[in-house]
Amino acid sequence: MSIVEELCRAAAAVKYDVQKLSTDIKNKALYTAADKLVERQEGILAANREDIAAGRAAGMNEGLIDRLTLTESRIEQIAEGLRQVAQLPDPVGELMDEFTRPNGMKIRKVRVPMGVIGVIYESRPNVTADAFALCFKAGSAVILKGGSDAIHSNIAITDVLRDSLEECGICPDAVQLIATTDRAATRELMTMRQYVDLLIPRGGAGLIRAVVENSRIPVIETGTGNCHIYVDKDADLEMAMKILINAKTQRIGVCNAAESLVVHRDVLDSFLPMLAKTMEEYNVLLRADEDSRALLPLAEAVTEEDFGKEYLALMLSVKTVDSVEEAIAHINRYHTGHSDCIVTRNQEAAEKFLSEIDSACVYVNVSTRFTDGFEFGFGAEIGISTQKLQARGPMGLREITSYKYLISGSGQVRG
Amino acid sequence: MSIVEELCRAAAAVKYDVQKLSTDIKNKALYTAADKLVERQEGILAANREDIAAGRAAGMNEGLIDRLTLTESRIEQIAEGLRQVAQLPDPVGELMDEFTRPNGMKIRKVRVPMGVIGVIYESRPNVTADAFALCFKAGSAVILKGGSDAIHSNIAITDVLRDSLEECGICPDAVQLIATTDRAATRELMTMRQYVDLLIPRGGAGLIRAVVENSRIPVIETGTGNCHIYVDKDADLEMAMKILINAKTQRIGVCNAAESLVVHRDVLDSFLPMLAKTMEEYNVLLRADEDSRALLPLAEAVTEEDFGKEYLALMLSVKTVDSVEEAIAHINRYHTGHSDCIVTRNQEAAEKFLSEIDSACVYVNVSTRFTDGFEFGFGAEIGISTQKLQARGPMGLREITSYKYLISGSGQVRG
Repeated sequence: MSIVEELCRAAAAVKYDVQKLSTDIKNKALYTAADKLVERQEGILAANREDIAAGRAAGMNEGLIDRLTLTESRIEQIAEGLRQVAQLPDPVGELMDEFTRPNGMKIRKVRVPMGVIGVIYESRPNVTADAFALCFKAGSAVILKGGSDAIHSNIAITDVLRDSLEECGICPDAVQLIATTDRAATRELMTMRQYVDLLIPRGGAGLIRAVVENSRIPVIETGTGNCHIYVDKDADLEMAMKILINAKTQRIGVCNAAESLVVHRDVLDSFLPMLAKTMEEYNVLLRADEDSRALLPLAEAVTEEDFGKEYLALMLSVKTVDSVEEAIAHINRYHTGHSDCIVTRNQEAAEKFLSEIDSACVYVNVSTRFTDGFEFGFGAEIGISTQKLQARGPMGLREITSYKYLISGSGQVRG
Repeated sequence: MSIVEELCRAAAAVKYDVQKLSTDIKNKALYTAADKLVERQEGILAANREDIAAGRAAGMNEGLIDRLTLTESRIEQIAEGLRQVAQLPDPVGELMDEFTRPNGMKIRKVRVPMGVIGVIYESRPNVTADAFALCFKAGSAVILKGGSDAIHSNIAITDVLRDSLEECGICPDAVQLIATTDRAATRELMTMRQYVDLLIPRGGAGLIRAVVENSRIPVIETGTGNCHIYVDKDADLEMAMKILINAKTQRIGVCNAAESLVVHRDVLDSFLPMLAKTMEEYNVLLRADEDSRALLPLAEAVTEEDFGKEYLALMLSVKTVDSVEEAIAHINRYHTGHSDCIVTRNQEAAEKFLSEIDSACVYVNVSTRFTDGFEFGFGAEIGISTQKLQARGPMGLREITSYKYLISGSGQVRG
């Protein structure tokens, strides 16, 4: 048996024990892990320094080095994240529905854990603790496969998590790290259908595509966002600019940042000069279609490829449309189904946009940057789903659970 | 472009139109189709006779010929099924949750259609109409790939469905049949991720395995059932026998029939002689473990393979256990996660079983035969899910929808 299969088997072997843990003991384990991460930060930081050195030696760019880097304060943030998950309500056992059938049998629908959840992610080592915390609180055992770049950090963090479980009398196999940099291990994990109930990829578009295309395990796609702001003919243009600035520039590397502006032809003359000026101030490069370029002196010509792109950079594509219908058709064609916004004072246009845009989150007069578990009030999230099955939008604890029906009676048989 | 891709593209092209249809127009189309199936039954029956003749020529067994065969009364039943779906509440647009955040943005969670649903099924031609009705009422376009044996019947039925849509002013591309017996077409359908949002296989274990292993589209697994009846030491033995007879024999070819009996050692002496006699009466063959065989003179020795089998026949495996814990471990190891039952008067054992059996439906003192959309009061079902993602147990209209978040505000941006 391969190492990957052994780890998956070990996680599956303890899943029913994890499922039965009380809320109190799960929370105790999370608080213990939070404290222990801080207590043992020296070891974690030393491991992290090894990863950073290897990254630099391999010519990793500064942006990635930054994502990889742990500090005392980042470890404190990770610990705080675990404490926040401990404070969230436990979804396991929640009564979702209850009814009695005419033959007297009583049916209850209750929320239950998934069983074993696999998480495949890239270089941020904080995901190791975050993903564990959410899956564990949701009653599942978890198998982690982090990025090779963070391997030493991930091992050090996982050791702390496992020790914390053990200290609370919980089998440490409830969290498993596939501690290899071998890519074959990731592919093998995706075939472990007999042990793993759900696979969540967290990372860039390439990772997500690879998981979706190769996994034999049910997957929830997360995280790629090509978000649009549509400025309607009836928009409050100042509000539109405020929303666009926020959605485009407040944080550029995130999936709920805006990547494309769609403008109604009727407001080109009034909105675009303001756009040109403001985007220059914010160092945002524009790629615009022919009609809008006439009013955007610095814009390059946009290509079809641009419209489909998640730039994650100070870059914005611009598309002119003649109607809200055309805006909707354009957005539904090029977006990733994450978050899109209309700015308008027109109730009818707003309703049409809300109803017809096929995204997890559709906004009227609000920045797309709010697509986030905390902002929605769900607490920490394991990701933002851009698929339609199981969960859509911010995924909190409930979204990584399942349910079952419990039927009680007194000897009912079917006639 | 291949024929399969053309059909999928055509379905995807109309999905937003289907999504917008009012409940009334959807119901009108369903009633129209019901009437038209009866009106045009001569043509359907003639097509069906071609399939039957081809089946007989190919040496198809009588059980399969029966499943394939349409009659006037079966067509009336299919029509009645469409009318029943018309009477079900429309899930589309249902407000699932609504709340306002401290910054004033109002968030609504509303039920929306999947988009395009593919259904791959075996020889029963009634599925053509049933699957269409449920997917269409749930607001999705549907792509059907039926069994090759029923190709002429499926074409005839789909023609009626498409004509009915057209008569109601709906684009007939909302229902597409992949009208080929080429198996490559099924494999190709499973790759059409850019057009199809959800794939539901309906049929035997082989079909379902093939879809799960090959699909690039998210799948809901349905229908294989290896259901267990556990007779506890504190069981009412007469009730246990009544439930077992019902679950094993009332209909043997269905996924919620019992395939395995698990018996507590303390009741072997009292229950097994009764079992031997009753099962002989009902012509049920037993395959029993060593401990139980001593009291079951006609039973063959059970194998490990038997415990994992969905017999779909007058056959029952028998396993002796020493405790409810052992029963739970045995069942969780061999079942398909469909439906399992404990017969007991002991509240503690019942609670343990309900909580720890990892199945879609867990029963106390009720026959497993009730795992059914109608019996649960959900109306017609598209299948019974044995997976944990998206839906578990009987899947009605809601289970084949998704949701999205609608966020309205007055210029909120993230700080």
